[in-house]
Amino acid sequence: MRGAVIHAPGDVRFETLDDPKIVQPTDAIIRTVATCVCGSDLWPYRGLEPIGDPHPMGHEYVGIVEEVGDEVTSVKPGQFVVGSFATSDNTCVNCRNGWQSNCLHREFMSTCQADYVRVPNAQGTLVATGEHPDGAFVPSLLAVSDVMGTGWYAALAAEVKPGSTAVVVGDGAVGLCGVIAAREMGAERIIAMSRHEARQKLAREFGATDIVTERGEEGVAHVKDLTDGVGADSVLECVGTAQAVRQALRSARPGGNVGFVGVPHDVAIDGQELFFSHVGLRGGPAPVRRYLPDLVDLVLTGRIDPGKVFDLTLPLEQVAEGYRAMDERRAIKALLIP
Amino acid sequence: MRGAVIHAPGDVRFETLDDPKIVQPTDAIIRTVATCVCGSDLWPYRGLEPIGDPHPMGHEYVGIVEEVGDEVTSVKPGQFVVGSFATSDNTCVNCRNGWQSNCLHREFMSTCQADYVRVPNAQGTLVATGEHPDGAFVPSLLAVSDVMGTGWYAALAAEVKPGSTAVVVGDGAVGLCGVIAAREMGAERIIAMSRHEARQKLAREFGATDIVTERGEEGVAHVKDLTDGVGADSVLECVGTAQAVRQALRSARPGGNVGFVGVPHDVAIDGQELFFSHVGLRGGPAPVRRYLPDLVDLVLTGRIDPGKVFDLTLPLEQVAEGYRAMDERRAIKALLIP
Repeated sequence: MRGAVIHAPGDVRFETLDDPKIVQPTDAIIRTVATCVCGSDLWPYRGLEPIGDPHPMGHEYVGIVEEVGDEVTSVKPGQFVVGSFATSDNTCVNCRNGWQSNCLHREFMSTCQADYVRVPNAQGTLVATGEHPDGAFVPSLLAVSDVMGTGWYAALAAEVKPGSTAVVVGDGAVGLCGVIAAREMGAERIIAMSRHEARQKLAREFGATDIVTERGEEGVAHVKDLTDGVGADSVLECVGTAQAVRQALRSARPGGNVGFVGVPHDVAIDGQELFFSHVGLRGGPAPVRRYLPDLVDLVLTGRIDPGKVFDLTLPLEQVAEGYRAMDERRAIKALLIP
Repeated sequence: MRGAVIHAPGDVRFETLDDPKIVQPTDAIIRTVATCVCGSDLWPYRGLEPIGDPHPMGHEYVGIVEEVGDEVTSVKPGQFVVGSFATSDNTCVNCRNGWQSNCLHREFMSTCQADYVRVPNAQGTLVATGEHPDGAFVPSLLAVSDVMGTGWYAALAAEVKPGSTAVVVGDGAVGLCGVIAAREMGAERIIAMSRHEARQKLAREFGATDIVTERGEEGVAHVKDLTDGVGADSVLECVGTAQAVRQALRSARPGGNVGFVGVPHDVAIDGQELFFSHVGLRGGPAPVRRYLPDLVDLVLTGRIDPGKVFDLTLPLEQVAEGYRAMDERRAIKALLIP
């Protein structure tokens, strides 16, 4: 088969690779129907995370089950499945508590920009749709496997409630999906922080009521202007830089909540500032599996359409162009079709 | 009148001071019935916080109203009142959201180790008991004004639920009151971290089911041994040092919650560690006013007896001995009677 391999910053190649095989009786092999490039893939691509030896990339996927290990009974060959970027047995204590992305047997997916993918913990990870979905749903189902699930978690961690005010920091695919989530959870006012016209437009389409273009302290000041001077009830941090986290914390009202889902890079949170703010803070890799059945339903009933974040579709063999387009912000998110 | 004045680390004096007067129409003057020394008073006493010019001390109080400003109608002279260490108008947006300790007109109490005290924002701060309480209730009512209210908030911030497991880091008065709070909120297992026999005994009396004497990583390991290897649902951090905060965060299970109420001193929280832990974190000066009526009821109906944290009672004029005894850990908390 063929798939993407990162060799160095800026150097993603489409190469011939060994076909994946069942290694554990809990594995499944799927044939990729669609995959994509994630904002977090840009960290190593930009040289901001070590790469080490050349290795495959990708953790978002929908596909058709090809083969399952002996212990997998929940899905079977031929079914269309969606899974999370973090695999989970869905039975351990952390899974039972609802934190499947902290499963004791968790393995992060990392080889999905390829024709075929091995999915560990398949029994507890994959959710099959009733029948093969219409192709029009594929982008949104793919979004559910990561960015939509992550935006959903950000809104839950930020405790978005009906009638509340939410701020979304970050206008990447996760932030835009966070807008969808905040709207679904009943936020009355949704302030999207974005400086990019195309993203602002999509944010509004997804439910944003206000756009703030400033960053840093100016952005915080603008948010406070819009929120009775005190800040927002809920803030969804969808970037992961120190500046974005600080901006998120300072945009929340006293006693408000910040959900942070951008993987933090060099972020240290000042204990005393957090203390006196009374702001609640929770983050992490989203436990997408917890929401997967509901989110698949929301997509298939046409209630949400997070697939709109894909503004570039390429054949998988052009994966390198997908990285380039996202790196240069020519695309929000690149969909890849094998 | 007379009261405590701190001059330098280790140097608290009992001096003659001007009687307080009504300054704002929202003020009240109370005659102190009881006051005390707080763990947080030890930070400057130990030279760990700057002192500046000599100044009065104390932020915990119960007393009899002597005089009220023109705008104060909720309490009247002669009534026995309890208030919070943080004053609040109880009408601003932050108060309405339940964050009275972040009131837009907040003033922290700071002169309570004295015969008389001026209470700003008296209308929204003071709660009168129906009649003058029996003297036996005075220590517990005094505890409600800070340490019991703070322990209560720690348990709420840590989201203690019926049937859950809670860890309390810190065996000072706040930590011990946190044990009471966790029990009242239905925690099935309460692990108190304490190395001091008298405090362990009181923790058990208040509802602790287990004692962990180790600190740091050893303490975390012991907590994990007691909690299926994953950590506790809720952790109450009642110290404020970097070590205690780290210990609290690491003692929580994935997706658990930490309430931190020790004022942080040189605490920086690693964003990436917090992220991957999925732990929720909320702290701050407790919004005691939110709970004050309920906590006063719990005391006066005999349901809770947080006054037991006072293991030393002194006449106010011996306030310096109160500080010494707490500094040397000869006393958990010193009650002062004018």
